[in-house]
Amino acid sequence: MKIDYNLQFNENNKLQHFLNIENLSKEHINEIIDLADSYINNDSNKFKDLEGKTIASLFFEPSTRTKTTFELASKRLSADFINIDIANSSTLKGESILDMIKTLEAMECDMFIVRHSSSGTPHYIAKEVGKKISVINAGDGIHAHPTQAMLDMYTIKKHKGSFENLNVSIVGDILHSRVAKSLIASLKILSVKNINIIGPKNLMPENINELGVNYFSNLEKGINNVDVIIMLRLQQERMKEAFISTEDYYNNYGLTKQKIMLAKKDVIVMHPGPINRGIEIDSEVADGPNSVILDQVTVGISIRMAIMSLIFKNK
Amino acid sequence: MKIDYNLQFNENNKLQHFLNIENLSKEHINEIIDLADSYINNDSNKFKDLEGKTIASLFFEPSTRTKTTFELASKRLSADFINIDIANSSTLKGESILDMIKTLEAMECDMFIVRHSSSGTPHYIAKEVGKKISVINAGDGIHAHPTQAMLDMYTIKKHKGSFENLNVSIVGDILHSRVAKSLIASLKILSVKNINIIGPKNLMPENINELGVNYFSNLEKGINNVDVIIMLRLQQERMKEAFISTEDYYNNYGLTKQKIMLAKKDVIVMHPGPINRGIEIDSEVADGPNSVILDQVTVGISIRMAIMSLIFKNK
Amino acid sequence: MKIDYNLQFNENNKLQHFLNIENLSKEHINEIIDLADSYINNDSNKFKDLEGKTIASLFFEPSTRTKTTFELASKRLSADFINIDIANSSTLKGESILDMIKTLEAMECDMFIVRHSSSGTPHYIAKEVGKKISVINAGDGIHAHPTQAMLDMYTIKKHKGSFENLNVSIVGDILHSRVAKSLIASLKILSVKNINIIGPKNLMPENINELGVNYFSNLEKGINNVDVIIMLRLQQERMKEAFISTEDYYNNYGLTKQKIMLAKKDVIVMHPGPINRGIEIDSEVADGPNSVILDQVTVGISIRMAIMSLIFKNK
Repeated sequence: MKIDYNLQFNENNKLQHFLNIENLSKEHINEIIDLADSYINNDSNKFKDLEGKTIASLFFEPSTRTKTTFELASKRLSADFINIDIANSSTLKGESILDMIKTLEAMECDMFIVRHSSSGTPHYIAKEVGKKISVINAGDGIHAHPTQAMLDMYTIKKHKGSFENLNVSIVGDILHSRVAKSLIASLKILSVKNINIIGPKNLMPENINELGVNYFSNLEKGINNVDVIIMLRLQQERMKEAFISTEDYYNNYGLTKQKIMLAKKDVIVMHPGPINRGIEIDSEVADGPNSVILDQVTVGISIRMAIMSLIFKNK
Repeated sequence: MKIDYNLQFNENNKLQHFLNIENLSKEHINEIIDLADSYINNDSNKFKDLEGKTIASLFFEPSTRTKTTFELASKRLSADFINIDIANSSTLKGESILDMIKTLEAMECDMFIVRHSSSGTPHYIAKEVGKKISVINAGDGIHAHPTQAMLDMYTIKKHKGSFENLNVSIVGDILHSRVAKSLIASLKILSVKNINIIGPKNLMPENINELGVNYFSNLEKGINNVDVIIMLRLQQERMKEAFISTEDYYNNYGLTKQKIMLAKKDVIVMHPGPINRGIEIDSEVADGPNSVILDQVTVGISIRMAIMSLIFKNK
Repeated sequence: MKIDYNLQFNENNKLQHFLNIENLSKEHINEIIDLADSYINNDSNKFKDLEGKTIASLFFEPSTRTKTTFELASKRLSADFINIDIANSSTLKGESILDMIKTLEAMECDMFIVRHSSSGTPHYIAKEVGKKISVINAGDGIHAHPTQAMLDMYTIKKHKGSFENLNVSIVGDILHSRVAKSLIASLKILSVKNINIIGPKNLMPENINELGVNYFSNLEKGINNVDVIIMLRLQQERMKEAFISTEDYYNNYGLTKQKIMLAKKDVIVMHPGPINRGIEIDSEVADGPNSVILDQVTVGISIRMAIMSLIFKNK
């Protein structure tokens, strides 16, 4: 399925949906980061921005972390939040996604938070719903996870101030990672000087040369002198497909205290979580002074509040 | 179990519970429709009517659509809504329904929304709880689904203005349908001129002659010149009992674009959802200009808000 | 694991967590009871005490009753309440409890309600979280259930006025009961004159002589002339371990109408619920004039509101 990256904009080039990083401008990204920052800097954790709005979460894939952040973001903005229990829903009794969506639209839901194992599903839903509904992509297949990328950009800005002169490395299974694809798109829009991707060759996308990034099969070389290291979560089942043992992966790509000494002294280490301690990252690093992993979690709620709030302001 | 249809009224003939359509007056029904209409016509989706009240949903049968509408209705009225997770609850560890209900009553819940596979369970609960508690029947066995019937009446009124001169056909498995029984009761109270029920003879109740309706085994004859067609959802397991294949059912009772041309030009087509496309109804009809199926969903929330709100006003 | 009973106090000897009854003073207990009483005596069921606070429930063991009371307590205090669905959470995909807790802390949750099958887990969590987070023990292993004991003390005070001159009997499997341990600690702090524990010898703790209570293997002797009888819930699987049949248990320790005539005329009968009718207690007693079992449920919400609210006042 060919994905239309412009689908998320209304006729005034404002965000009606939040589906992908691609086609966002620097201004779009900075507007979201600035709004998130205003929530973070506010003493209160309760706002009225979405009072009377109904947010429905539609997670066709299981999730704790991302679903919880959207639920918290909705409640802190005073929205009515409902979680559609897909496992027990009529979808599985033969109702199509489209009928389900149309039904929720008729119930006057204002926004859908969608996670699905098939790439492009949030775009498909966004195309089918009316003008009053907005869709947020909470992860689709191996395609995109744009709110994760946004919270990562905010984290980088908080710690590094600006993007242009940074060297950023992303480590892991780029091929199957929706996070990686949204990260690369974000970093390029923000004019990051050097983007390195690191991992075994058979876990890299085929169009590696068209990505505008530097590929390293060697971790030490790839993180040399960088400002930011973003580790991806290792999916054990993917490792089997790629004929790599967990031990080999750890030896070659596991981030240790010793290895990060190759990066800049003030390098920040990021991970979308949940982390596999002792596999892709050592506890010494995850809990160490360079780690900003828990910072990512905190700003993740503010970023989602900002995206939701901005979309309603644009209506 | 003999069901007491007067159980839902308090000593002033006002609704304390909402358990069945039977024994309601035209005035009761119109009061609810008018109140629902005032919610629909209000720009806001947030009201304070039930602030400080606790609504507990007790679904002993799985449901997405009806449960979600009650949850949304509760939240839009600012009630505290809690969903009792029956599957994981102590009920299954030997606690009786009665002990469970008494416990929730002691927790100062104000209203129970009850769905149960045994006919009469909401009435049983209503009889056992104290004066301060109200019970809403969200579907009991093959007996009644009164809030569904109420939203259907509201939908008809919106599109047809009044009830007296209408010809209304209900198509499907009347015998096992709780929706059908509540519909027939409603249409009779509202003095609808002609009520037709249509379906295979072995899916009709035995007391068909006492119902005050016209029975047709032939769909074409039964929908001839009618104003309203209400399709029921086909339950595949019931078809097996009745020795009807899905193909035979579709050929005889499936609603197609061609068949609805026998009805009045401005006929409305209704269905409680979720629909089985290509079995009891064609997509051309379900999504066509005569369909008001999504309208039913929208008014379904307002009707439930109206019923809940009215019951608290009556206290 | 040695449990630190002082962990729940901040530097001003105020409660930051609520983990155990041990080490509470009479004043601590009475402060909570008085605050609960003020909620009970208020006509409203909606307060603003916890507006803008986030409460997360973490039940690693299934529960309906206790979880629901915490959810209701949170909502009636206007907190944002989120239920972490442990069964579907990433904990089971290899994330440790500690990583989960740190993540929820980073999400700016203010309070965790924790139930776990391992004794001491809430204390472990309380030790690991920062100063801004509070932990409430909703039952840990066979160790403690302090909010249950608190609601039981409030129930006794409501019915008996004061504690000093009371004779109180606790009946059942003391060895495996977390409720019993928290009850005994509470009754001793409140200077109750006589505390009797009753049950088969092999369901009693080894250190029975150090408990400061009177042990009876005979129910009739143990409840003779008492003011309060607290029945424990019989766990069928524990009976098998102790080689006692349900029939033998009922004959020896089941509370009947006849047996309670041995106690004072105005004895109150308590049970934490859900009750096993006809096993540890007869319906005639459970539903009879001496039973205050449903009263316990009602005050259970106010007690939890009081504990939560007090902890936030102490910050």
